[in-house]
Amino acid sequence: MTVQPRPLTGRLDQSSMRRANLALILRHLQRAGSGTRSRIALETGLSKATLSNLVVELIDRHLVREDGPDRGGGVGRPGLTVSLDGRAVAGVGVEIDSEYAAVSAVDLQGTVIRETEAPVDVVALGPEATLDRVARLIGRTVLSLTEARVHVAGITVSAPGVIDYTTGTLRFAPNLGWRDIPLVERLTDRFSQPFPQIALENDAKLAAIAEYASGYQQQGVEDLVYLAGQAGIGAGIVANGQLVRGWSGFSGEVGHLPLDPTGRPCACGRTGCWEGLIGLRALLRRAADDSDPIHDPRRLLEDRLTELHERAVAGDARVLEAIHDVATDLSRGMSIVVDVLNPEVVVLGGYFAILGDLMLEPVRAGLATRRMDDGSAVRVEPSRLGMTSTSLGGAIAALEEVFRDPLLVPVQARG
Amino acid sequence: MTVQPRPLTGRLDQSSMRRANLALILRHLQRAGSGTRSRIALETGLSKATLSNLVVELIDRHLVREDGPDRGGGVGRPGLTVSLDGRAVAGVGVEIDSEYAAVSAVDLQGTVIRETEAPVDVVALGPEATLDRVARLIGRTVLSLTEARVHVAGITVSAPGVIDYTTGTLRFAPNLGWRDIPLVERLTDRFSQPFPQIALENDAKLAAIAEYASGYQQQGVEDLVYLAGQAGIGAGIVANGQLVRGWSGFSGEVGHLPLDPTGRPCACGRTGCWEGLIGLRALLRRAADDSDPIHDPRRLLEDRLTELHERAVAGDARVLEAIHDVATDLSRGMSIVVDVLNPEVVVLGGYFAILGDLMLEPVRAGLATRRMDDGSAVRVEPSRLGMTSTSLGGAIAALEEVFRDPLLVPVQARG
Repeated sequence: MTVQPRPLTGRLDQSSMRRANLALILRHLQRAGSGTRSRIALETGLSKATLSNLVVELIDRHLVREDGPDRGGGVGRPGLTVSLDGRAVAGVGVEIDSEYAAVSAVDLQGTVIRETEAPVDVVALGPEATLDRVARLIGRTVLSLTEARVHVAGITVSAPGVIDYTTGTLRFAPNLGWRDIPLVERLTDRFSQPFPQIALENDAKLAAIAEYASGYQQQGVEDLVYLAGQAGIGAGIVANGQLVRGWSGFSGEVGHLPLDPTGRPCACGRTGCWEGLIGLRALLRRAADDSDPIHDPRRLLEDRLTELHERAVAGDARVLEAIHDVATDLSRGMSIVVDVLNPEVVVLGGYFAILGDLMLEPVRAGLATRRMDDGSAVRVEPSRLGMTSTSLGGAIAALEEVFRDPLLVPVQARG
Repeated sequence: MTVQPRPLTGRLDQSSMRRANLALILRHLQRAGSGTRSRIALETGLSKATLSNLVVELIDRHLVREDGPDRGGGVGRPGLTVSLDGRAVAGVGVEIDSEYAAVSAVDLQGTVIRETEAPVDVVALGPEATLDRVARLIGRTVLSLTEARVHVAGITVSAPGVIDYTTGTLRFAPNLGWRDIPLVERLTDRFSQPFPQIALENDAKLAAIAEYASGYQQQGVEDLVYLAGQAGIGAGIVANGQLVRGWSGFSGEVGHLPLDPTGRPCACGRTGCWEGLIGLRALLRRAADDSDPIHDPRRLLEDRLTELHERAVAGDARVLEAIHDVATDLSRGMSIVVDVLNPEVVVLGGYFAILGDLMLEPVRAGLATRRMDDGSAVRVEPSRLGMTSTSLGGAIAALEEVFRDPLLVPVQARG
């Protein structure tokens, strides 16, 4: 019997090798900062002739630049330093949430260069009117980038639901009330071509990418779970330093874990889902009577949560109890996720982050009661990115495509 | 703000670049099979001079060989074909189970070249006497390989418990009754040096590696969960084509998910653990009275399970009900693991595989009742490797180290 791992990918042809080597140089510069051609050749093992050709290709695409003390010299002069340029290339991320839409742009060096947000009542508007508004936000951002001579490498749009990646369809987003919306096609149709390519991704996965890239990766964390409290509960998983999408992109569908012993029916069609205990509506229901203005959907969500927080701090017993109970129920499901994945950090996003100072202690206490081994205490931390994490993650995901295949960026006119 | 992913690893020095390029060539040959030097240089982007030096290093270590039509020519003659050799290098895997120990050896080409197993009553013998027996098994295998001029690149030992990887200590194996055993040190002490390096790994993780390498990887599966029914229940997770160990190696500790509403106490110190519902003892307890010979620990486990299977096939109502109930409870926890990870395949090992033909249908039916989306039906399949999967996985894991750093294999005398 033979058990040797043998990846399916066969022999690489010359053109894919060229792509792979361009990507190798770009990644190398991302890690090392900069270097002379001979240094990069030595460090990557590429021949000097190959390297020189590839560096010229990257310069033509405004992905790297060459400069140094000898600024007057011609391209390729020895002594010049090659470094990541990337101010001329950006990724764009877009979040469609049930209450708002947000757009972020990040350049190849990781600088956030655009950020915008608008309230959108998605459920009331329905898909077409919502996509009109989202398309206007995207169009404005892309136009402003193009005018600033920044090439948009790609656009990643997120929605809180299950994605069909092959067709760019949002299959099921219970909290938007959307089902089988060919989102990529519908958005693309709203722009005249050529327009940057649009991709679709799940919101919690993009937020996990942004949280990971915003500090944890740099700390050497390799295993992280992002857990977001919104209308629904979703998880984004990073394992071995990589996003885990799962076989068909459904990983992290933890909102529907069977954790509610009362068996409450859920929008997903199951009963007794975790979301029914700790989703946004469950929190509000626990915290106040139906007639309380905290439930008013016309008010900004952040304002309502801030008010809730103020009531808790002022000693409102019902609100305090609601937050405590939600935190305890959060810890029950979290301990399951921790048992399966053993992450180093769980990052709490969405409303969990807004109420973080009140929730963290009971969450940690709840986790401790089910911990098998004291050595493995997971860190639980509130998100530091707030409401923009998902759109930031979308921008980073769009740039990842460039790092994977630098040829996606066309040769650009010299500025 | 800057959110660019930026790995911690800094500039590579020349010696680590040499290792990385040796590994690149070895991986390339594993994938491509073989090639001439000029072809490999072209496909890897390495300069011909660099490649030639590195190929000689690999030949000196008996990791690759050069041959072809022009057999009479000297090493390096153009037209000669470089391919993975590896018949001279093997990895060894060792499983310590509560009832037996197993040893497997696999060569670099993936061929299983040694396999041996012995019954060991670990709980009765205790750690020292058990390790004496295990060391004898290992010693015999290594001696036989050395006599056959096969270099043992490393030995990976598995135990059903939680591992401290830094010190090679088995921290906690409830079903062996072992706690804080410095297993690597105790085993190493039993051999005169030099002896191949010994590493320690969790059993379900190694079995997952072997299952993945035995066919699923070749099919292009990237996300797989291995779930083993033994005294305890453990999971091995493959995501994005890589083993997920978790932050401190505790991933897949699913046996202690809180799934038993009766809150039975567990050896781990928690209550209501999944293991208490579907572990081996739970199955036997459900299937027969305490006085039934099926419980007799002096009988071989496989014989007892075969008898149980026979009774079920003969229509024994209590056994049939026990298997059905265990399968249903298995599906409840499995649906949680599937919600978190969205694997393409769940492979059932241990006793789940032996009773597979009776368990698969109720497991699939149970999963279907909690499925959110028909499109994502996970494949559930019994293990094809049987009781050897863990030791095979250990051998593959030991070889992985060679693919990562070919310099671990010393220069060998020309045979």
